Amino acid sequence: MSNSYGSVFRITTFGESHGAAVGVIVDGCPAGLEITTEEIQQALDRRRPGQSDITTPRKEEDKVTILSGMFEGKTTGTPIAMVVNNKDQHSHDYSHIAQAFRPSHADYTYTTKYGLRDYRGGGRSSARETVARVAAGALAAKLLQHHGITVQAYVSQVGPVKLRKPYHKLDLSQIDSNKVRCPDGKIAARMIGVVEEARDNLDTIGGVVSCVIKGVPAGLGEPVFDKLHAELGKAMLSINAVKGFEYGSGFEGVKLNGSQHNDQFYTDDEGNVRTRTNNSGGIQGGISNGQDIYFNVAFKPVATILQPQTTINDAGEEITLQGKGRHDPCVLPRAVPIVDAMAALVIADFLLRQRVNKL
Amino acid sequence: MSNSYGSVFRITTFGESHGAAVGVIVDGCPAGLEITTEEIQQALDRRRPGQSDITTPRKEEDKVTILSGMFEGKTTGTPIAMVVNNKDQHSHDYSHIAQAFRPSHADYTYTTKYGLRDYRGGGRSSARETVARVAAGALAAKLLQHHGITVQAYVSQVGPVKLRKPYHKLDLSQIDSNKVRCPDGKIAARMIGVVEEARDNLDTIGGVVSCVIKGVPAGLGEPVFDKLHAELGKAMLSINAVKGFEYGSGFEGVKLNGSQHNDQFYTDDEGNVRTRTNNSGGIQGGISNGQDIYFNVAFKPVATILQPQTTINDAGEEITLQGKGRHDPCVLPRAVPIVDAMAALVIADFLLRQRVNKL
Amino acid sequence: MSNSYGSVFRITTFGESHGAAVGVIVDGCPAGLEITTEEIQQALDRRRPGQSDITTPRKEEDKVTILSGMFEGKTTGTPIAMVVNNKDQHSHDYSHIAQAFRPSHADYTYTTKYGLRDYRGGGRSSARETVARVAAGALAAKLLQHHGITVQAYVSQVGPVKLRKPYHKLDLSQIDSNKVRCPDGKIAARMIGVVEEARDNLDTIGGVVSCVIKGVPAGLGEPVFDKLHAELGKAMLSINAVKGFEYGSGFEGVKLNGSQHNDQFYTDDEGNVRTRTNNSGGIQGGISNGQDIYFNVAFKPVATILQPQTTINDAGEEITLQGKGRHDPCVLPRAVPIVDAMAALVIADFLLRQRVNKL
Amino acid sequence: MSNSYGSVFRITTFGESHGAAVGVIVDGCPAGLEITTEEIQQALDRRRPGQSDITTPRKEEDKVTILSGMFEGKTTGTPIAMVVNNKDQHSHDYSHIAQAFRPSHADYTYTTKYGLRDYRGGGRSSARETVARVAAGALAAKLLQHHGITVQAYVSQVGPVKLRKPYHKLDLSQIDSNKVRCPDGKIAARMIGVVEEARDNLDTIGGVVSCVIKGVPAGLGEPVFDKLHAELGKAMLSINAVKGFEYGSGFEGVKLNGSQHNDQFYTDDEGNVRTRTNNSGGIQGGISNGQDIYFNVAFKPVATILQPQTTINDAGEEITLQGKGRHDPCVLPRAVPIVDAMAALVIADFLLRQRVNKL
Repeated sequence: MSNSYGSVFRITTFGESHGAAVGVIVDGCPAGLEITTEEIQQALDRRRPGQSDITTPRKEEDKVTILSGMFEGKTTGTPIAMVVNNKDQHSHDYSHIAQAFRPSHADYTYTTKYGLRDYRGGGRSSARETVARVAAGALAAKLLQHHGITVQAYVSQVGPVKLRKPYHKLDLSQIDSNKVRCPDGKIAARMIGVVEEARDNLDTIGGVVSCVIKGVPAGLGEPVFDKLHAELGKAMLSINAVKGFEYGSGFEGVKLNGSQHNDQFYTDDEGNVRTRTNNSGGIQGGISNGQDIYFNVAFKPVATILQPQTTINDAGEEITLQGKGRHDPCVLPRAVPIVDAMAALVIADFLLRQRVNKL
Repeated sequence: MSNSYGSVFRITTFGESHGAAVGVIVDGCPAGLEITTEEIQQALDRRRPGQSDITTPRKEEDKVTILSGMFEGKTTGTPIAMVVNNKDQHSHDYSHIAQAFRPSHADYTYTTKYGLRDYRGGGRSSARETVARVAAGALAAKLLQHHGITVQAYVSQVGPVKLRKPYHKLDLSQIDSNKVRCPDGKIAARMIGVVEEARDNLDTIGGVVSCVIKGVPAGLGEPVFDKLHAELGKAMLSINAVKGFEYGSGFEGVKLNGSQHNDQFYTDDEGNVRTRTNNSGGIQGGISNGQDIYFNVAFKPVATILQPQTTINDAGEEITLQGKGRHDPCVLPRAVPIVDAMAALVIADFLLRQRVNKL
Repeated sequence: MSNSYGSVFRITTFGESHGAAVGVIVDGCPAGLEITTEEIQQALDRRRPGQSDITTPRKEEDKVTILSGMFEGKTTGTPIAMVVNNKDQHSHDYSHIAQAFRPSHADYTYTTKYGLRDYRGGGRSSARETVARVAAGALAAKLLQHHGITVQAYVSQVGPVKLRKPYHKLDLSQIDSNKVRCPDGKIAARMIGVVEEARDNLDTIGGVVSCVIKGVPAGLGEPVFDKLHAELGKAMLSINAVKGFEYGSGFEGVKLNGSQHNDQFYTDDEGNVRTRTNNSGGIQGGISNGQDIYFNVAFKPVATILQPQTTINDAGEEITLQGKGRHDPCVLPRAVPIVDAMAALVIADFLLRQRVNKL
Repeated sequence: MSNSYGSVFRITTFGESHGAAVGVIVDGCPAGLEITTEEIQQALDRRRPGQSDITTPRKEEDKVTILSGMFEGKTTGTPIAMVVNNKDQHSHDYSHIAQAFRPSHADYTYTTKYGLRDYRGGGRSSARETVARVAAGALAAKLLQHHGITVQAYVSQVGPVKLRKPYHKLDLSQIDSNKVRCPDGKIAARMIGVVEEARDNLDTIGGVVSCVIKGVPAGLGEPVFDKLHAELGKAMLSINAVKGFEYGSGFEGVKLNGSQHNDQFYTDDEGNVRTRTNNSGGIQGGISNGQDIYFNVAFKPVATILQPQTTINDAGEEITLQGKGRHDPCVLPRAVPIVDAMAALVIADFLLRQRVNKL
């Protein structure tokens, strides 16, 4: 039940890290949307391993195939299935982790939950599952583009290095100008240093991805339980390694008085309703108010480290475990397209849900 | 569609602030649970307005009536409907807000979304809707009690005053020992001072509620989209005024290296699998690992202030608006039972969902 | 989970036959629909017990109260809760059925399913639950009326007496002209005779309700699992005592050749696409084609009879049981508004669902 | 939204008749179920085209590949994706139907619904979609086998030839002993004659599939909307060409009096609760009572006939159309495994849903 996300624009993902393939069915994409396989592929290429020396050096092409739901270059309203085959899924040696419960991994919890687990590369708990999300997100982003909505995520913190400028003082066209995906070149250089240091220490480091969504019309999001920010929060927290979510003024805003925090409405020269400040993060009462939506997502350091660690095996015996293979010292750069994808999926879903609220 | 929460233990709420009643249907509570109206009422009494001089002085009894689903003191497996009648719903004068878009309220967004709104006391966007959640949460808490699980929320920050001790160094039996619901008496006194200052300044102030859940067996939560913390996050972010959610090491944890952050497993003297640290917050891969679950929830300052504010009306004209009536200078003390309720609902749902995962 | 129906226009019902109240929450009704309590009440009055001498002589007013979701005579887009209080729920003597498993009732299956049951008047398994459906259906019918769609159910068979004329040869304005709700007066008289005979024999009798839906635009219904007729079928089969559903040519159509059964398309003088025959019952590939939708619903004879019957109690011992009280000898006349309600709910839901299928 | 079925054991299908592939994701199958690709394939082979001279002579192997969710021969609790590649999807000439609205097909309704359609072989509206259902159904059937439950569908009517014996007087092991899948050899021979006659006349013929489910424990099915028979009905009516569903006494039962129709309970020699008759079809109040479940499903004659027919094109102009290619003169023999699959899916889902109803 838990492998689906979305209410109208709804995705269902499948696949294990080292199984035959990972993929997704998108059900509920409106008919008539023009999109090409190349557009999906471009999104996947931003997530692909091996794209720089601060990500995992694994080389995987992650070529996507669309199996259904398209005809003559357009969506037909029927489910769109997309598959990415896994490479070399039989070539690995998992003897060191088959019985181990790796620290801060999902080995123990999956085994407890299901009574067994596919231990190859973390199985379903691997971040490889996000391939499917990025493919579906590219489709959602195309729908948003059709409605003039853009989603732009970027790295705003790596370890202690924090980008303090708010999003509206950044040149977001520069997000992909460096390998850490921080739009400020100077801060980016310092972030890269932090990642390289962690990598060289056989260690890993956490960080924060920030995201801005522009062009969302007022009225999106549902009151009460499916508030726009509640769904954004769930979507972000469903990404591997995420530990926190805040939008608008967030955790800092709790220190303010109401008189400082409130966003006053005014009518601009073109007759549009706007707010003078945007502590609300573009959302009031769970519903978009037409201002920019922005939020932060906290990622913990990657759990797989190349140092020896003490843990236990499935017999409860203490063992020493050392990560091997090619892992990311920091997920942040590759997390950016995943945050983009999940945000696009949330907005696409609410865009369609909003169509039924008036007579 | 958005007025329901939960997958198996599922609630649907209804009611406007100044309509006839607010209430809830709980569908999916297992048969055979013993519970009394008094137990539901006790939970509501913790949320009730007028309980202290730092909350709204409105006097509302909020008496709950159970309409269905109980027989001879036990749940029957059929839907449990609970209703709380609103008092004096016709006695108010709303002329000052009927056409106004109050700053940082949902007046503008509801009007845009639906084309009209019930402006009486905020209508459906009022926090009065949480009466229904607390009633349902009391039922969920009773189910958890049957399984040895406890949920304990408390106020850990008000404005700049922050309780820095972690939950395991606090005496959680003292949560209700003071009117701000902070289990540390000294910090509580300072928090109360901050609330009083805001109140006396005709202003409001934000804060943080922390929550600990003990006794959750390993294996709860669903991988991928419905991760335990993703649902907790959504549930918390669906509460009025919430701006952020973090669990375990949260936003602070992003500064750590993996070697610092990882929680090593060990087997305790009784043969239980445990972790030496708990940066994971009791959840790994979206699934409970048997350790304590803990998280923080950020609340913005209440938007209704008793000072004049500039805003616009529904014709787009600038107006000056001044809050009147009896409002909370700080929602935190009354937010505690709401956080308790939503957390209990999330865990109860996953407790039942877990029953279908093994052969 | 099973007390909700519908995807966008979604109802959740509650209440036991002899509990405090029965009721419904309608979530997803678009904002701006004008409706009065009187319109809901009119639908309930068609279902009310005691309306003629061929239905149960119980006198129940079934007065509906709307608790939420309305403002100044219009729906607001928030959940609409409606409640009907039960009368005299404590005045009955159930000692004769408290331990008995009545033949062809749900006593045994509820007890097995839940481990206990509310035996008062059948509890949740009583057809009294349909009060909630009829109230919600009246709201759906008002939405359909706004779109020019009408739903008209009528009794087409009672026991062996069958109305053989197809719906388009009947004067459907005559449905309520007699107490059995068959629009053909002569057949109605014969049906009434059959019901009276059953009643006088302390027995009951089954029958068929037919239903016609006019004005449905082409394009409603979803392909694959949620076909328009599949949802109509589920909705009808969810009504107490229903044993079968067929639409269009139905079971009789299986004897035909494709060349006889196929409905040829043509363009009428006004340029509308039409079919020369309508064996499809207005639905092709699960989607409405703009022609009239029609279907039949089979109701078994009421299980409660006033004759002695042999059965067992919950200890497995053979007992003799005799129905007492005031029961319907034939549910058909009162089933008509229930079929109307469920059909309206299905169409209203698809009307809203269709809004998301195109770009 | 409409390409998923089931609540806990949930399938989502994809694929067009002449697209790259058809397939399914099964989400919610419990972990630990042993199953092989061969077992899935066997079910598909019963549905495969070209299996006899009374089905379509198209030769398609329909080889299934499992992409995920299995490890070391067992399900892991994660989604199971299965794909069947389509053969030769580019080799056909569709010029004769690209603009035509074929009578009693879904060409017109899909075009109206979505604004465009994949006309190749009927696209998504083709019965080829049921490949996915049969693959998923084989998995469900394996789960049922683990619980001692069997599902057996067979052809009980073709055109006017009807098998009048009830299921308990048939030798159900003989279902696959002839090419029409009727367990009575004599009747089967007459049915085959009817199909051959239709085929030789370039025509098609309808029929009825009956189905028996044995071994279902009492307590399955949910009251109110998701009654066991309501879900069975929906599942059956969602199969292409189905026009009606009845269970137990069905449409015939409406002629009976309650005293004739009621099923008396008794305790058998082994202490089991049983009923002396089974007009209830094993279901009372929407919940299984432990007796055999049985039902009938009406299939209309196949719409594609090899005779010329008058219809219109998408410009509304009258055209003459003649089916070509290799089509089934009668879907009944190949419908049997589809009915089996859908019935297994319904029961598997309720088997899991029942786990949450008691404390």
